[in-house]
Amino acid sequence: MKISAIITLKQDVLDPQGKVIHQTLDGMGFKDVKEVRQGKYFEIEVEENDPSKAKKLVEDICKKLLANLVIENYKIIETQ
Amino acid sequence: MKISAIITLKQDVLDPQGKVIHQTLDGMGFKDVKEVRQGKYFEIEVEENDPSKAKKLVEDICKKLLANLVIENYKIIETQ
Repeated sequence: MKISAIITLKQDVLDPQGKVIHQTLDGMGFKDVKEVRQGKYFEIEVEENDPSKAKKLVEDICKKLLANLVIENYKIIETQ
Repeated sequence: MKISAIITLKQDVLDPQGKVIHQTLDGMGFKDVKEVRQGKYFEIEVEENDPSKAKKLVEDICKKLLANLVIENYKIIETQ
């Protein structure tokens, strides 16, 4: 089954990439944007078919490889 | 309100980054992974408080700036 992992910077960590996107949007005329923060997204297909076991596996992958837990948070969701 | 945009490569487009992550996971002992595909994630805070209008705005932003519609798909979700 497919499980998605979303990795975002913690709230207090500066996000220069997001800031640049925000400025660009402002220049393009999108004036109603308050903040943009960029994150990473992974779609991981695993052999496991039990949702909770599959999520556990992807959580393990996030902790060990994909996320830097000092500055990032992760969120695991079932891919719709 | 906060709206999230997830941008993924279309199914037929090669994803070398995802492939490298898959290989790395394999080397780390995660043998139950079938495929990894990487995407981009944006959390956009807009002034608009009406969910459907806010989503429409973020969709517009995806089309005009964030996504390359030739090779990428986007998905708009309300941030939980």
